[in-house]
Amino acid sequence: MALYVGEKADRRELIDTAMGRVPADTVLSDGQLLDVYSGVIRQADVAVKSGRIALVGDAKHCVGSDTEVIDCSGLHLAPGLMDAHIHIEAAMTSPGQFARAVLPRGNTAVNWETLWSANVLGVEGLRLLLEECRRTRLRFFLTATSGVPCASTDLVTANHSFSIEDIRELLAWPQVTGLGEVVTFNELVACRERELEQIEAALKAGKTIDGSAPGFVGRKLAAYAAAGIMSDHEATNAEEALDRLRSGLRLVIREGSSMRNIVDILSALAEEGADTRRCCFCVDDKDIREIDAEGLIDDLVRKAMSAGVDPVEAVQMGSLNTAEYLRLDQEIGGIAPGRLADILLISDLKDFTVRRVMVGGRIVAEEGRLTEPAAVASYPEWALNTVKLKRELSGADFAFPTARREESRVRVVKVLSDQIISYEETATLPVVEGEIRPDPGKDILKLVVIERHGRTPPNIARGFVRGFGFKRGAAATSISPDHHQLIAVGADDADLQAAVNRLVQIQGGVVVCREGRVLAELSLPIAGLMTAIPYEETIRHLEEISAALRDLGCKLPSPLMTLAFAGCPTLIEFKLSDKGLIRIGEGKLVSLEVEE
Amino acid sequence: MALYVGEKADRRELIDTAMGRVPADTVLSDGQLLDVYSGVIRQADVAVKSGRIALVGDAKHCVGSDTEVIDCSGLHLAPGLMDAHIHIEAAMTSPGQFARAVLPRGNTAVNWETLWSANVLGVEGLRLLLEECRRTRLRFFLTATSGVPCASTDLVTANHSFSIEDIRELLAWPQVTGLGEVVTFNELVACRERELEQIEAALKAGKTIDGSAPGFVGRKLAAYAAAGIMSDHEATNAEEALDRLRSGLRLVIREGSSMRNIVDILSALAEEGADTRRCCFCVDDKDIREIDAEGLIDDLVRKAMSAGVDPVEAVQMGSLNTAEYLRLDQEIGGIAPGRLADILLISDLKDFTVRRVMVGGRIVAEEGRLTEPAAVASYPEWALNTVKLKRELSGADFAFPTARREESRVRVVKVLSDQIISYEETATLPVVEGEIRPDPGKDILKLVVIERHGRTPPNIARGFVRGFGFKRGAAATSISPDHHQLIAVGADDADLQAAVNRLVQIQGGVVVCREGRVLAELSLPIAGLMTAIPYEETIRHLEEISAALRDLGCKLPSPLMTLAFAGCPTLIEFKLSDKGLIRIGEGKLVSLEVEE
Repeated sequence: MALYVGEKADRRELIDTAMGRVPADTVLSDGQLLDVYSGVIRQADVAVKSGRIALVGDAKHCVGSDTEVIDCSGLHLAPGLMDAHIHIEAAMTSPGQFARAVLPRGNTAVNWETLWSANVLGVEGLRLLLEECRRTRLRFFLTATSGVPCASTDLVTANHSFSIEDIRELLAWPQVTGLGEVVTFNELVACRERELEQIEAALKAGKTIDGSAPGFVGRKLAAYAAAGIMSDHEATNAEEALDRLRSGLRLVIREGSSMRNIVDILSALAEEGADTRRCCFCVDDKDIREIDAEGLIDDLVRKAMSAGVDPVEAVQMGSLNTAEYLRLDQEIGGIAPGRLADILLISDLKDFTVRRVMVGGRIVAEEGRLTEPAAVASYPEWALNTVKLKRELSGADFAFPTARREESRVRVVKVLSDQIISYEETATLPVVEGEIRPDPGKDILKLVVIERHGRTPPNIARGFVRGFGFKRGAAATSISPDHHQLIAVGADDADLQAAVNRLVQIQGGVVVCREGRVLAELSLPIAGLMTAIPYEETIRHLEEISAALRDLGCKLPSPLMTLAFAGCPTLIEFKLSDKGLIRIGEGKLVSLEVEE
Repeated sequence: MALYVGEKADRRELIDTAMGRVPADTVLSDGQLLDVYSGVIRQADVAVKSGRIALVGDAKHCVGSDTEVIDCSGLHLAPGLMDAHIHIEAAMTSPGQFARAVLPRGNTAVNWETLWSANVLGVEGLRLLLEECRRTRLRFFLTATSGVPCASTDLVTANHSFSIEDIRELLAWPQVTGLGEVVTFNELVACRERELEQIEAALKAGKTIDGSAPGFVGRKLAAYAAAGIMSDHEATNAEEALDRLRSGLRLVIREGSSMRNIVDILSALAEEGADTRRCCFCVDDKDIREIDAEGLIDDLVRKAMSAGVDPVEAVQMGSLNTAEYLRLDQEIGGIAPGRLADILLISDLKDFTVRRVMVGGRIVAEEGRLTEPAAVASYPEWALNTVKLKRELSGADFAFPTARREESRVRVVKVLSDQIISYEETATLPVVEGEIRPDPGKDILKLVVIERHGRTPPNIARGFVRGFGFKRGAAATSISPDHHQLIAVGADDADLQAAVNRLVQIQGGVVVCREGRVLAELSLPIAGLMTAIPYEETIRHLEEISAALRDLGCKLPSPLMTLAFAGCPTLIEFKLSDKGLIRIGEGKLVSLEVEE
C-alpha cells in the first residue's frame, strides 16, 4: 500500500543505513541524477531503505550481502511526477485502472480534485474511493472539494451539499492536501460567506486552497488572490499566466484534453524571463485514450523540454514545485535523504523514456507495465446505483411544447470545437403540432438535462444546441460536470428517449442510439462516472462510441467532453442545467423562447 | 501590535478594496516592484487595506477621498526582509531595542532561535519575551528550541530541561515556526531518542525543523537529513553548501559576527549554476555594533548584489525563500494580494538604501528611524535575577591546585581569532605553592566556568586557554552559549575574582577588571543576556569594554564572542563547561592535567 504523508518513518533505521551501520534494501548505482533541489544533473548513487531514501551520493558503504544493486549507468534518475490538479473521473477509469495507466509512465502521485465524485457520492463516497486508492501504488492525494453543491441551488438541483463541518472533517484527513478549486466566479468577488468560511478553515488547518478563475485578470484576479486562494490552473495566454504569478498564485500550467495551454504559457514565461519555481503541471481533465497515447505529467515534461525548457526545470514543474505548493516536499518531489523513494529510471532524457518506476522503494512498473496486478475494489450498491429516476420517461418528456404557432424564436447553446465553454445564440425554429422542433439541417439539435439523483419528479430541462452536427440519432451521458445529471443531445425524440432509457438501465455511462437501436455504449457504474474494467476495454468502447457519433454526423473532435460541459453551471457562458438555461455571468435562468 | 500568521484577515474587505467598492487606506503609486514571485522588476501600484495588500497593479480605482497616496516614482518596492535563523541575544538588546535597530533597515521579520533564553528562563521566559516582541512592529517568530538542555547533562549542568510535552506545547504557539536547531552532533547520528521524538512532534504539527550541522558532509549529512531535518546554516565552503542543497536541506546562508560565509557560498553556487530558490539568509549571531554599522539581512542582500547576484534573486533569498521554508509565504515574503503589507521603499537599489519601511500597512520607519517610540516591557524579578551563586566566591575558587611539583603538563583550550571553534592543545606550566600557574608570557591564561543557575554548590570548572593575549587583568561574562554559565578568563586570580563578583552584583553581563578595579562593564539584567537600555548605550559600553580588553593586551577582533563560545559544549572541538574540559567529538570529560 502506498505510504502517505504523515506516516511515521523509521528514522533510526534511515540514519543507520546512511551511516553504513545497516545495509540498504536497494542501491541505484551510478545514475545521472536530476537534482531538483540544486537544479543540476550529476552522477550519484541512491540508497533506499524501507521505502525511503537514506542517502544520495556515494553509497558503496550502504551495500550489504542482501542489498539489491541496480546498475543505473547510462540512465537518468528523476523524482516521480505529480499532477497538481486532476479530475480522474474524466478518464472514466476507477483509481486502480487509472493507476495502471499512468504509473508506468512515471506519474507517481496525483492531487485529485474530487469535485465530480463528491457531488454524486458525498463524503462517504470519497471514503470509499480512497479505499481503492490505498490499494494502488500511485499516491492519491485528495482535495476537500469546495464545489458541493457545484453552483447555487437556484440554478441546479444538488444531490449532496457539504457543510463547513464536512469541509473541516475532510481537511483533517492526512491524504487531503487542502480545499479544492474554489469555483465561484462573480460570487466570490461578491464575497459569498460560504467560500470565505471554507478558505478560513483551510488556512486554519495549514492546508492549501486551490483556485479556478477562468478569464480572471486585473482587479478580479487580485480580489480572488486577496481572498486567500493560492493557485489557479485556468490560464490560457501570456497575460493570464503572468498575472497569476505576479499575484502570488501558484501558476498551475494545464495540458489536458480540451484545454491545451502549455506551449503558449511556457513561451510567455520565457519571453518575460519569469522564474518558474512557482509553476506546476496538471492535466485537469484528460481522456483515457489521450492518457494512453500521450501520458499524463510525463507528456507536459516532454512538451516543456521540446519547447526549450531545461530538463531539470521541466521536471521541477512536474515534481518539486507541486510538492512545495502542496506542502508535501518533505515526503515527495525530489530525490534526497528522508524522502519516500519514488524514483524514475529514464533511458532517453530528451524523450523522457521511463524504463522503470520505483514507488516507496519498490519497482512497481517496468517497460510500460505494472509489475503487479492492478488494484481492484468492490463498491456497495449505493455507489453503483446512482441513476435514480422517480418514473419511466415517456415521449412527452422529450417534446418541447409551445403556445406559439408556425415558428418560435429560441435561445440556443452554441458549443465550440475543442472547448468547454459555450455561448448564447438565438434561432427561429418551426413549430409543428404545438411543439418546437429541432432543425438538424441548420445543426440545431435538442439538448435535454434530466435530474438523476432522485431529488426531483425528475426535473427535465429542455434546450437547443448548435455545434454537434448530428444529422440523426441521439447520445446521452451521466457525465455532466459538476452535478452530473443526465445530459442528452439528439436530432430525434425517439432516439433521445431510447438513449436516456438505456443509460438508466446501465446505471450511467454513455449511450449512442440511432433509429431506436443502441449503436455503442459504455457502462460507468461507479457513481455513473467510472468503471473498473481494464482501461483498454474502456478505450475500445470509447472508440466505438466515437465511430457511432461520426455515423450520426458529428464532426467534433471530442464530442463527449463537449456534451458533458454543455451542462456545466460554472463555466463560460451559457449552459443548460436540470432547472433550465443559465446565463452564467448573470447567475440567472432564462426562458427557452425569446420573449416577443 | 504586529500581526501574526494565523490571525484572521477581513477577506471581504480586501476583496471589496481590490474591486474598487471600498477605498484603500494607502496606495503606493508608480513604484518599481521587485516581484519575488515572477522574479522580475516591473512598475506597479500597491493598494493596502487594514494592514494587508489588496491589489498590485493599476490601483487608481482603489483611491478614495481618504486614501493616502504615496508617490513611489523613482523608488523600488521590495518585500520586508526576514532573518531565517537568529539568536537575538547575541546583540545583547531586548526585543524592543533590537527591533529599533533593525526595522529601519528593512528587516521586518526574524525567526528567533530561542536556545539561549530558553536555557536560562524556560518556557515561561519565552512567554515573557514574546510579550515584549508583540509590542514591537517587527514580526518575531520563535522556534521551539530543541537544545534545552543544550547538551548531555553528563557534560554540563542544565537549568531547564524541555520535555517532549514542552516541545509540543511550544509547537502549538502560532508564532512558533517549528523545532529549533537540532544540535546533536554525533548523538543524532547515534540516534538519540530525544531528538527523534522532537522531530516527529514537529512533523506532526506540520511545522519546520531547523538544523545545525557544522562540518557535516557525505554520509553524516545524509543521516542528518534522513532524520527529518529541513535546513542547515553552518555551511562555510563550496562543498558543504552544495552538499546541503543536494541533500534537500534549505541552505541558510550565514553572515554574522564570527561566521562570514556569504561570499564564498554564493560564488560556489554561481560556479555550480545552482538554483538559489532553496537558499535563505541569516546572521545567526551578530554583535549590536555590527548590526548598527552594517545592518542585518539588508547587509546580506547588499553583499549578494555586489557579488553579482541579480537584485530580485538576492531579495528572494532574504524574503520569499525564507517565507516558503517556514510556511509563512501566504502571509509574508512578497508583495501580492492577501499578504501582510510589509513593504520597503528603496531609493537606491544597488546600495539597497531603505527610505521608508511599511509593516502591516503602517510606515514604521523613515530615514533610518522608527516613527514611534521603541517598545518597552517590564520583567518580573525572577527574569532579572538569574545569577544565583549559592555562596560568596573566595580566592581559593580561582586557584588550580595540583599534587605535582615544579611543573605540570596540562590541556589547553586553543581559541582562534574570529572563530567560535577551539582545539585541544597541551602545555607545561609552572607549579608554585601547590598550584598550577598561568603563563601570560606564553599567552596561557586561566579559564573558569561557574554554574550560575543555583543548581549546584556551585560547580567551578578550571582550565587554561591560549589565544586571548591578556598580559594582565581578567574578564567575565554571563553569556556562554548555550547554557550561559558564568565564564571568565584572566591572567590574575584577584582580577578573576573581582570580575566574577561584580558580575554577580550586576546580575549578569560583562565585566573587565584590572588590579582589582572594574575598567568597564555592561549590565545585562534580562536572563543575564539582554538589556532594555537604548542600543546606542549598549554600543558605548561595549566600546569601553573593547578598549579595556585591549588595555589588558587582548588582540582578538571579537574577544567577548570568543570567550562566550569557549564554554559551548556543542561546538568543535575542545571546550570548558561547569563540569570540566570536554572533548566534543568523543562527548566526554577529560582531566586538566595530562596523565603521566
